[in-house]
Amino acid sequence: MGEKSLKAEIIAVGTELLLGQIANTNAQYLSSKLAEVGVDVYYHASVGDNESRILDTLQIATSRSEIIIITGGLGPTNDDLTKETVAKFLNLPLELDKHSLSKIRDFFDKRSISMCESNQKQAYIIQGSHALANNSGTAPGIYLESNNKTFILLPGPPKELQPMFENEALPLIKESVLKDENIIISETLRFFGIGESALEQKIADIIKVQTNPTIASLCGDYEVTIRITAKATTKQAAMDLILPVKNNIISRCKDYYYGDNNDTLISILHKYLLHNNYTISVAESCTGGLLSHKFTSLPGSSNYFLEGLVCYSNEAKIRLGVRYDTLIEHGAVSEDTAIQMAEMVRIRSKSDIAISITGVAGPDGGTAVTPVGLVYIGISDNDTTYVKKLNFSGNRNEICLRTVKQALFSLIKHIEG
Amino acid sequence: MGEKSLKAEIIAVGTELLLGQIANTNAQYLSSKLAEVGVDVYYHASVGDNESRILDTLQIATSRSEIIIITGGLGPTNDDLTKETVAKFLNLPLELDKHSLSKIRDFFDKRSISMCESNQKQAYIIQGSHALANNSGTAPGIYLESNNKTFILLPGPPKELQPMFENEALPLIKESVLKDENIIISETLRFFGIGESALEQKIADIIKVQTNPTIASLCGDYEVTIRITAKATTKQAAMDLILPVKNNIISRCKDYYYGDNNDTLISILHKYLLHNNYTISVAESCTGGLLSHKFTSLPGSSNYFLEGLVCYSNEAKIRLGVRYDTLIEHGAVSEDTAIQMAEMVRIRSKSDIAISITGVAGPDGGTAVTPVGLVYIGISDNDTTYVKKLNFSGNRNEICLRTVKQALFSLIKHIEG
Repeated sequence: MGEKSLKAEIIAVGTELLLGQIANTNAQYLSSKLAEVGVDVYYHASVGDNESRILDTLQIATSRSEIIIITGGLGPTNDDLTKETVAKFLNLPLELDKHSLSKIRDFFDKRSISMCESNQKQAYIIQGSHALANNSGTAPGIYLESNNKTFILLPGPPKELQPMFENEALPLIKESVLKDENIIISETLRFFGIGESALEQKIADIIKVQTNPTIASLCGDYEVTIRITAKATTKQAAMDLILPVKNNIISRCKDYYYGDNNDTLISILHKYLLHNNYTISVAESCTGGLLSHKFTSLPGSSNYFLEGLVCYSNEAKIRLGVRYDTLIEHGAVSEDTAIQMAEMVRIRSKSDIAISITGVAGPDGGTAVTPVGLVYIGISDNDTTYVKKLNFSGNRNEICLRTVKQALFSLIKHIEG
Repeated sequence: MGEKSLKAEIIAVGTELLLGQIANTNAQYLSSKLAEVGVDVYYHASVGDNESRILDTLQIATSRSEIIIITGGLGPTNDDLTKETVAKFLNLPLELDKHSLSKIRDFFDKRSISMCESNQKQAYIIQGSHALANNSGTAPGIYLESNNKTFILLPGPPKELQPMFENEALPLIKESVLKDENIIISETLRFFGIGESALEQKIADIIKVQTNPTIASLCGDYEVTIRITAKATTKQAAMDLILPVKNNIISRCKDYYYGDNNDTLISILHKYLLHNNYTISVAESCTGGLLSHKFTSLPGSSNYFLEGLVCYSNEAKIRLGVRYDTLIEHGAVSEDTAIQMAEMVRIRSKSDIAISITGVAGPDGGTAVTPVGLVYIGISDNDTTYVKKLNFSGNRNEICLRTVKQALFSLIKHIEG
């Protein structure tokens, strides 16, 4: 990272933002990526597809920031003014970039669509700039250093912007602007079933003494993540700084730890189930099919997921094999019902493992004995069947989501033994 | 609406935005609400919790906009600078608002939490301003007219900001700024199974001649909506303008129309099923439980939803009652399989209606005969069983979502007869 702090500003161009048709998620994405490499973003701005207002916004941005990232307005239509307006602002001409033109041609050829005249416009870049390749669309991005400022123009659609920024723009920022021979590597550790402050307390002494790597926690979607970020001259050297800290944190919090980086609860389970050649079946009530849906969300899940039953009514539970007297004596939301649901669906489908859910998602249907948020999760395999009793707060949808995440997490811990 | 167009600008204050920890969804919400009443939003800006940069941003905003809405930074901590900085910018003192103070006290009393000294800070407002009541949190908002500009300060959390804007700030904008005795009423019509341009073509002549009400279309989430907006002195007069246009549009596009305003496919079905006292069951394969989950997403769904089966494997389909020779001859993804799944789950659960889904969600598993995106949806009741064959494009998740929406829409049309 450079010694002096660099100020960046993100300008989004597009009237659809000012009409509230879409949120500016590009600014969030770019800000988080820039924060990771130590570039300070001081301002976001959004402006419509209007030349004079874009010029004013560029004037303000160049008066206060060194790196100016402009998103959107690189499309083929007359509304798309970004490139032309930045060129006008810098008093630089546009030039045809033959490599971009042939990439745009290829894009249309591959899809057997004929290329419009207007798409040719997209192959023009500002004199003296680098084209940033667009592997998900037609508009190339632009990277330009001019008057001691760095201008980066990116297409608006996130699926085009994100890979272009990460693979094309960010390496140029690091090399040309940050002049940094260090690389920054992050590892994210993923935890479930513990709150952010409780987790931080367990590792407070580790956080306190660390400067490289740094440690940051973040919570969301009922999970907590810890990001460990190291700076070093090689990837190996950075990983050598990260690994002891990572192992130390995991050993302190292993009951809650389930994966790293882009892992999700279901991606870990997917891996475990395939690796062990386990098959699975589901019997769920209050989550109404959401757990089954999670199990079938990844390609290849037909290798392990055999069957799911959404036993919403008592009759459906009885058809699965839950005993009538259990429902009468203990109720549909009870440990006994959860056990029988898990066992019966495992026997029915001949799966190696079965998982069951019964609970009260609310807002109605709660009683003193079975309040809204009370959930039983049953797990059954050839050796054993057991139940976890949980109390969740939140609305109907939140209780469902937390229950399904808890079920997936419990199954991960079951398979890990 | 005022005769001259009013320019508004939305400033979000919060370092968390510049670090990319959250997206600025408040700007989207406020922009869409302001567009509805005819206020043009020309700029969005985001700035960190830093006095001098907030002052600079206010300076720029007041030089180009008449209405300046500032979100965030009204909390009790030292980082929260918005109110103090706007007061400094306008050279106005802060004053204790006793009504706000007693509301904050009530907020803590109700939750049996003792109130901090720092919460008292939230009861101060800028001299000459109106406090905007916060019914979901502690920080009151502020509405202030000063130097021919209107300043509106709103709390950052959307669940506090949205009701405060809608119920407290928007009426003041209409009354004091727009000086408008007209009210604006919108009706949104919801369509499924038709593209935006195809729908627009069907009503092009209606759109062309309308000035009051105006007609605008929007697409998203595989649906198209048409918003009809009328301006008049009373609600009744506005509705009298809207209704003939609404009825005309619906009569032209009735095959695709399913509901209005906040209706969703499942909310309409929920109403239909309860009203007719129908019960329902589901047998689904490629959607993996998502259709069942949709049916159980609304409170009260246990009155009609009996049971869902996620027959993912061929064995699970056979256990439900699909014939082995059907699976061999026609395959799991076939009209015959869809018919048998719907009939067998209806018989099994004794439901009035049953719905089945079998298809190829991909990305693997497609063949020449059953390509990725091929889906059969079966509907069965006491009188009839029939199947719809569909071809969807998109990735695994998109195919699942479109299939489930199509199933819900088909069932609406089935019940409508």
